[in-house]
Amino acid sequence: MARMVGFSSLYRLYPQQPTWSSVVKRVLDAPSVRGRGRGVHSGARNTPARLPFSHIIEEDVAFFTRLLAGRAVTDPDVLAACNTDWLKSVQGKSELLLRPQTTEEVSQILRYCNERNLAVSPQGGNTGLVGGSVPVFDEIILSTALMNKVLTFNTVSGILTCQAGCVLESLSQYLEELDFIMPLDLGAKGSCHIGGNVATNAGGLRLLRYGSLRGTVLGLEVLADGRVLNCLSDLRKDNTGYDLKQLFIGSEGTLGVITAVSILCPRKPKSVNVAFLGCLTFQNLLETFQCSRGMLGEILSAFEFLDAACMKLLERHLQLTNPITESPFYIVIETAGSNATHDEEKLHKFLEEVMTSSLVTDGTVATEETKIKALWSLRERITEALTHDGFTYKYDISLPVEKIYQLVNDMRDHLGNKAKNVVGYGHVGDGNLHLNITSPSKDPSLLAAIEPYVYEWTSSVQGSISAEHGLGLKKRNYIYYSKPSEAVALMGNIKAILDPRGILNPYKTLPDDLH
Amino acid sequence: MARMVGFSSLYRLYPQQPTWSSVVKRVLDAPSVRGRGRGVHSGARNTPARLPFSHIIEEDVAFFTRLLAGRAVTDPDVLAACNTDWLKSVQGKSELLLRPQTTEEVSQILRYCNERNLAVSPQGGNTGLVGGSVPVFDEIILSTALMNKVLTFNTVSGILTCQAGCVLESLSQYLEELDFIMPLDLGAKGSCHIGGNVATNAGGLRLLRYGSLRGTVLGLEVLADGRVLNCLSDLRKDNTGYDLKQLFIGSEGTLGVITAVSILCPRKPKSVNVAFLGCLTFQNLLETFQCSRGMLGEILSAFEFLDAACMKLLERHLQLTNPITESPFYIVIETAGSNATHDEEKLHKFLEEVMTSSLVTDGTVATEETKIKALWSLRERITEALTHDGFTYKYDISLPVEKIYQLVNDMRDHLGNKAKNVVGYGHVGDGNLHLNITSPSKDPSLLAAIEPYVYEWTSSVQGSISAEHGLGLKKRNYIYYSKPSEAVALMGNIKAILDPRGILNPYKTLPDDLH
Repeated sequence: MARMVGFSSLYRLYPQQPTWSSVVKRVLDAPSVRGRGRGVHSGARNTPARLPFSHIIEEDVAFFTRLLAGRAVTDPDVLAACNTDWLKSVQGKSELLLRPQTTEEVSQILRYCNERNLAVSPQGGNTGLVGGSVPVFDEIILSTALMNKVLTFNTVSGILTCQAGCVLESLSQYLEELDFIMPLDLGAKGSCHIGGNVATNAGGLRLLRYGSLRGTVLGLEVLADGRVLNCLSDLRKDNTGYDLKQLFIGSEGTLGVITAVSILCPRKPKSVNVAFLGCLTFQNLLETFQCSRGMLGEILSAFEFLDAACMKLLERHLQLTNPITESPFYIVIETAGSNATHDEEKLHKFLEEVMTSSLVTDGTVATEETKIKALWSLRERITEALTHDGFTYKYDISLPVEKIYQLVNDMRDHLGNKAKNVVGYGHVGDGNLHLNITSPSKDPSLLAAIEPYVYEWTSSVQGSISAEHGLGLKKRNYIYYSKPSEAVALMGNIKAILDPRGILNPYKTLPDDLH
Repeated sequence: MARMVGFSSLYRLYPQQPTWSSVVKRVLDAPSVRGRGRGVHSGARNTPARLPFSHIIEEDVAFFTRLLAGRAVTDPDVLAACNTDWLKSVQGKSELLLRPQTTEEVSQILRYCNERNLAVSPQGGNTGLVGGSVPVFDEIILSTALMNKVLTFNTVSGILTCQAGCVLESLSQYLEELDFIMPLDLGAKGSCHIGGNVATNAGGLRLLRYGSLRGTVLGLEVLADGRVLNCLSDLRKDNTGYDLKQLFIGSEGTLGVITAVSILCPRKPKSVNVAFLGCLTFQNLLETFQCSRGMLGEILSAFEFLDAACMKLLERHLQLTNPITESPFYIVIETAGSNATHDEEKLHKFLEEVMTSSLVTDGTVATEETKIKALWSLRERITEALTHDGFTYKYDISLPVEKIYQLVNDMRDHLGNKAKNVVGYGHVGDGNLHLNITSPSKDPSLLAAIEPYVYEWTSSVQGSISAEHGLGLKKRNYIYYSKPSEAVALMGNIKAILDPRGILNPYKTLPDDLH
């Protein structure tokens, strides 16, 4: 029936390229996944084996020392910090840290590493939570810390172009003076780099209002084998061909090194209010969310939650004070608008409604900056409080919004007294739960009780096992819980085009069975 | 210095795959682009030669007739409409139109076409303006017209999942009853399909407020060689691996056929106002824009403009009435918010400010739906008015916002009396100019005066030669004016992975010199 007549490839430039379907077939036929469907753990050990990259030799160090003059670091004390992640949960053994200042230097570094088959671990502020920002073995650490210049800012369009190593909070401060703000904000803002934010497609606290980086990032300048791929557009719209920069957003440094970013920044709101509210049930919290969307509408800029267990950790470990009466659930609502009178009127009407209907049992409102910061710290400092509670198993789950607390309850029932604490908090507006489980110390039997249970639970409701943290080293082999094999195989194929030797952030994002 | 030591490819699955750099090198070495930099026209003829796809034979028609029972159409009268674009500017010669109803049927069609090496032209509402939605030769037309079902809508999250053939206006009507709206709106809403909107990354009138489809589209279900790539997530956040759906957004059907879409929909605003204003100079118009961003802030949902030449065409060809005194420039401002009193107060203060300072010389405001529609039609019906003015040369340019009218003035000076009319309108908020030049009939000497002048002008200020219309057939060879050769080569490589035989919408988007 279906005879092949007159076949010819349109793309004769690439005669040897395997087809997507042939790649998929080979992946599906590989022993580790054969016969397994969506959501099935590949079963690979989570500690990878070192791949056969070259080892650094004296000539390499000499080359980088010449190139970077004082910015090729081999001092073990400096390296120790860069080899360890913020959570102190993973540790690399890199003996070389490079601190370029320009795109040209990054280009030369990568060209050399490609030729020499030296693996590279790109590093921004090293605030990631999935082991994506530190080397696993002896990869060279390529830090963007000294690439911290604002290049241009257009006050008419609100488009900022800057180097990748600019710290998020510094950019926010720079913009505030010009009456603009960054479209993203997150707890790690004091350390994280904008390049790292883009590389990990960071979500954070303003996503509800300003959308994801996929919409606000307008351009990138990235490098794979040393070539500069200039996608550094400062245009709001551009439909000339495929949007290549999207590949790099969220690719965790595995496809290229982001050296510069252009991003659309909103006007600084003239009026900001924060309300901290208590709810008796999660259902009440969800109804409060629905009500806020209707009554606060366009001025709603954040709707976050934490549970009573989080509040206890904040009080115990950070000596923070709960500003309202004890409740099972707490909400942080932020409004941001252009008219203080209008905003306060909307907020007061909303609060009257949710208090009268008993959706909310207690609350406090801040309009003054110091008090706003204090209320926000109850949400932003939970991660820090958790680090004081022992070893933390962290999960960053995307779920249909009505199910986000059910997972916390089910996990508590499932673990019984095996865990020290099981806490839930996160971004209600985005359907994003941060589930954290603490233990006095690392506990393999606890881990075995959590995983794959948490992934299977998430997969069963078509959730994502990484909403905003990425996969990094820790979650790379769990990708099949959220993505079909065809999609993962295609990702491998794209990696092979952009980084054929696989030197960029190896052991991260993609599962071991693709190697 | 840089010796290769211990080289080994990480991706042994694809041992034959050429590296990106080797592909780039070959493209750069090709005679048609050698020695040319960014913004240089490839010089290819704009009429392509038919590629060696199979021709349709009787057995093919029999196969599709069995598969689609009554929905495999060979009637020349029906085919005539599908072979011609809305502007009647390009004409294909397809003899077969397929109208599948399900993803499974699309999958079977594409599997068969791949095996038989039959080219396919996917078609939505056929409202595109760059010849992307009709066949060039005898490609089979794959219409999504009968795939018009809403699949799910979640009233908590606002996430809509639907088949690709849903008409944009039908979706808007469906959502309005549920108190939501679509995040995009455009003049062609009565005919265009959501799948086509996504495939072309349509911008439209609400982009300023709700952002681009890159942020609001959450999932896609696409097909290349017949396999279903299920990326149909209904999650707001998902950072598990590369965001493959982004490749398909804006790829104009050249990488896959979009069969279903999930998209985040905003709440329906409780209050909508439209103001129609007149300005004496474009500089005043820009200052009015700046002022509106500050004073209307979060309720500003559109800021559009048209020039006096557009108004004359609306009056002459469509008998529309100018509601204010004659002006060199006109603005359409829309506000959308959750509190009518607040919105009107903001709008009135803004209008007072711009009238008092003489930025605006006359204006009218509508709050009632019929009058709102009448004002909007002055902006939305310009394309239609142009079709009555003769043959139209259309350009859709992205520029730094302060330069968008300079191109219209420069083009008028450049063409002198060669053109019938040179008009400018578009989306000020997005830096997007629609430049249109009319002539009594097709005029090669006029075209030669316009191109490459318009592309060179755009490239000289780092603009985009296609802001939102895409490249399609007409602009494919001009891609180098807006994208570097490395980027175009990489696009070709991605096409080769997803559509190795190149059967999907050939002669579109990518330039001829990639073949």
